[in-house]
Amino acid sequence: MASFLRASSGLRSMTGRAVPARSSFKYTSVRSLASSSSTESSFLADEPVAPKVVTAIPGPKAQEHIAELNKVFDTRSLNMLANYQKSYGNYISDPDGNILLDVYAQIASIPVGYNNPALIEAAKSDQMISALINRPALGNFPSHDWASILETGILRVAPKGLDQVFTAMAGSDANETAYKAAFMWKKQQERGGPDVDFTEQELTSAMKNQKPGAPDLSIMSFKSGFHGRLFGSLSTTRSKPIHKLDIPAFDWPQCSFPNLRYPLEEHVEENAAEEKRCLEEAEHLIKTYHNPVAAVVIEPIQSEGGDNHASPAFFRGLREITRRNNVLLIVDEVQTGVGATGKFWAHDHWNLQDPPDIVTFSKKAQTAGFYFGNPALRPNKAYRQFNTWMGDPARAIIFRAIINEIERLNLVEHTAKVGNYLYGEIERLAKQYPEQFQNLRGKGQGTYIAFDNPKRDEFLLKAKTFGINIGGCGPSAVRLRPMLIFQKHHADILLDGFENLAKSL
Amino acid sequence: MASFLRASSGLRSMTGRAVPARSSFKYTSVRSLASSSSTESSFLADEPVAPKVVTAIPGPKAQEHIAELNKVFDTRSLNMLANYQKSYGNYISDPDGNILLDVYAQIASIPVGYNNPALIEAAKSDQMISALINRPALGNFPSHDWASILETGILRVAPKGLDQVFTAMAGSDANETAYKAAFMWKKQQERGGPDVDFTEQELTSAMKNQKPGAPDLSIMSFKSGFHGRLFGSLSTTRSKPIHKLDIPAFDWPQCSFPNLRYPLEEHVEENAAEEKRCLEEAEHLIKTYHNPVAAVVIEPIQSEGGDNHASPAFFRGLREITRRNNVLLIVDEVQTGVGATGKFWAHDHWNLQDPPDIVTFSKKAQTAGFYFGNPALRPNKAYRQFNTWMGDPARAIIFRAIINEIERLNLVEHTAKVGNYLYGEIERLAKQYPEQFQNLRGKGQGTYIAFDNPKRDEFLLKAKTFGINIGGCGPSAVRLRPMLIFQKHHADILLDGFENLAKSL
Repeated sequence: MASFLRASSGLRSMTGRAVPARSSFKYTSVRSLASSSSTESSFLADEPVAPKVVTAIPGPKAQEHIAELNKVFDTRSLNMLANYQKSYGNYISDPDGNILLDVYAQIASIPVGYNNPALIEAAKSDQMISALINRPALGNFPSHDWASILETGILRVAPKGLDQVFTAMAGSDANETAYKAAFMWKKQQERGGPDVDFTEQELTSAMKNQKPGAPDLSIMSFKSGFHGRLFGSLSTTRSKPIHKLDIPAFDWPQCSFPNLRYPLEEHVEENAAEEKRCLEEAEHLIKTYHNPVAAVVIEPIQSEGGDNHASPAFFRGLREITRRNNVLLIVDEVQTGVGATGKFWAHDHWNLQDPPDIVTFSKKAQTAGFYFGNPALRPNKAYRQFNTWMGDPARAIIFRAIINEIERLNLVEHTAKVGNYLYGEIERLAKQYPEQFQNLRGKGQGTYIAFDNPKRDEFLLKAKTFGINIGGCGPSAVRLRPMLIFQKHHADILLDGFENLAKSL
Repeated sequence: MASFLRASSGLRSMTGRAVPARSSFKYTSVRSLASSSSTESSFLADEPVAPKVVTAIPGPKAQEHIAELNKVFDTRSLNMLANYQKSYGNYISDPDGNILLDVYAQIASIPVGYNNPALIEAAKSDQMISALINRPALGNFPSHDWASILETGILRVAPKGLDQVFTAMAGSDANETAYKAAFMWKKQQERGGPDVDFTEQELTSAMKNQKPGAPDLSIMSFKSGFHGRLFGSLSTTRSKPIHKLDIPAFDWPQCSFPNLRYPLEEHVEENAAEEKRCLEEAEHLIKTYHNPVAAVVIEPIQSEGGDNHASPAFFRGLREITRRNNVLLIVDEVQTGVGATGKFWAHDHWNLQDPPDIVTFSKKAQTAGFYFGNPALRPNKAYRQFNTWMGDPARAIIFRAIINEIERLNLVEHTAKVGNYLYGEIERLAKQYPEQFQNLRGKGQGTYIAFDNPKRDEFLLKAKTFGINIGGCGPSAVRLRPMLIFQKHHADILLDGFENLAKSL
């Protein structure tokens, strides 16, 4: 890697300043150049100081890899072919020597930077090696250190009021096992408690996929919500037709999600009325839907659906409605969890007195599962909620290292602060280029910021030529999903890119 | 670890011979004691020579760990709390110093032994460390080495006729993504090809979980079959009510699976008639079921359902029926795949001229996904079959190391041979103790052997006191799932244990 700035061959430098050549980094090296783009030092020593774009993306080497991959693996959704060994901190690299500031971060899944040294240590540990090569069937043969891995990791950050966990593999199955827990809980209530046995009719009808054994219960979700792509989770996903077309689905209800108008301070009454309307619809559906609702699932911020927000009051209202109608509230924190909103869990912003019944997690946790507090959510018999692997201890060990790194660097509080700075500066840009930064949202939500752009797809594509890897969601949103180690000097590079994009679109 | 034999304090040694004390092993140590239970040397140097049982299982230390774990994690399905750092080869250890010959192997999921040195090397590699800490969103941002990881690993063992892969996390989502591929393929055919666009009605109805966008198509499975526990896979699972109770399910058809009588050679005509009956039922259901069948899913050996076998002729017949009725044949090799039947894939025993459309894998592969060969099984647009992680490169790297180890030691052929020996010896035992070893099955299927026992649960429990960790399936089967490094001298220890069990039950 010759330079982290773009070469001067007609390509514009992001900062306008030259940076000396530097050698490529290795896991163990201590790199000698301090960041020169700001007086602020990077959380990760020797992080690149700026993006560098030396070819079209994909460049010739990436194109070769893509052609090879396409023979055996669908590459039509490919965004950028990466070289992760050469990526570092907030910067993603490719085989052609391009280095982009990554504010998409593997669809919001990289928390503490590429090749973070603390994670390298965890990856090299004897405990990790054993977890990788001696993969247990966790429900049958947990390891002697599984309780400790959970307690010092996943459970150390358990949402308030929730002290148990069911581990899973990814967001989809985390949600689906949560839904299963909800159905079993609901039927147990109807049956009269954990000690009432299944009837013969239930036992035989379940085997035929018929009621009463396989009941016509439902999970209510919200329009534009996204909860995964397997058959149960996809039945609650309402983001885009492309996610759902041709796949059989359960007859489950969907409720309107508040369609807030921005800026919020100019639409206070209108937005309050919109939230009230949605809450009334939610309660009506819960009371009347022909397939009775066992649980309501909701994202704190609808992420795939377009970064749609609602107020803490809305969510407190939903908590009240679910409680008084005896259905569970499942908060899907798969994308919002683990710090990016400036709280560890996005629902921490709501000031709930009565916690959610279930919170699901994945992505930045690098593992998945659901938290719960109510003992009645443990099924009444063994093997009702079970599978061979039930998660992956190797990934749980990585999450623990991530939690330690978040604590060491105080990254949640940091993200709240840098998010405030970033939001303020985009707000300033939005005044200058109102067409390019519409419906700016995410104030006070850390770096979980989004805006609409009429040429969104072009915006995303062109961002790469300015050294920025950034993603979209919903019909027209640009969504920011920087890592938790995203700092003010990264924000300045991003803002510089935004201004250039605004001028060029 | 003082000794791999049980102490002489009233506990019976498995071999009757004393073995000197040995120090505990570490990943890098070369252990000095050769196997003394046989002239055959172990594939893994310095493997224990025999089980050792020094306490009741769970012992006092394990009980402490279980009590701690139970506070936060459901432990009612716990079989044995293990210490994997102290497990080696075919032997699983626990915190109390017990060492059992493991012929259950994490529900058929450990292929080449605990702490296999070749896997340790793979786990320590730079490529693995990067895969662990820089987890990509594979569909969007694959790494430059992803094609090579696939080609030198997962795809090197692709079933004949299948040259593409969709990677997944575990057996359940491997099957569900296969089902999704089948539904999209079927609807594309009905629509008139990949270039025919979705109708407005399809687009809007899909968002409401209603037809035609969310069609009333189905996947046909077989009675007693097991294909996973998420909502779509569970709708095809027909093993036991405890797996299905209280969970909503799709109205999909189930077909009878041949109920063969044993010994096979004494029931040739009867079994042929039974298979014919099931094939006729299969075709009838495909032709008439009210929710049209897009695919048929079947295990080569119904594993969770009780180790139920059918003949190659039956499967060839099913291939013909699915082909002539234009539905896909999905072969679920989640449990049967990767060598244990004496072929790499169990369906290699069938001598199909026309390969299955899709083969799913997981467990011994330590990763998951589905293979396919037909380009029409790539959906017509990007993002129809997609999720954030789409598998885990770290686990794909482990599978590659497993494949290399299988090749290096010729473990598939080895397993065929040792399976023949084991089957013959159990057959001999069955003549001596016909009550204890009923319906012996799995002849010529490697070590994938099972039998029924009228006191099955007691058999499994008591096996631990004789130093054997073994599992069951179906209502009364004892299923053998040794690793691929299971050798004649391990078989002799197992047979010794069986004889003791037979005498004591």
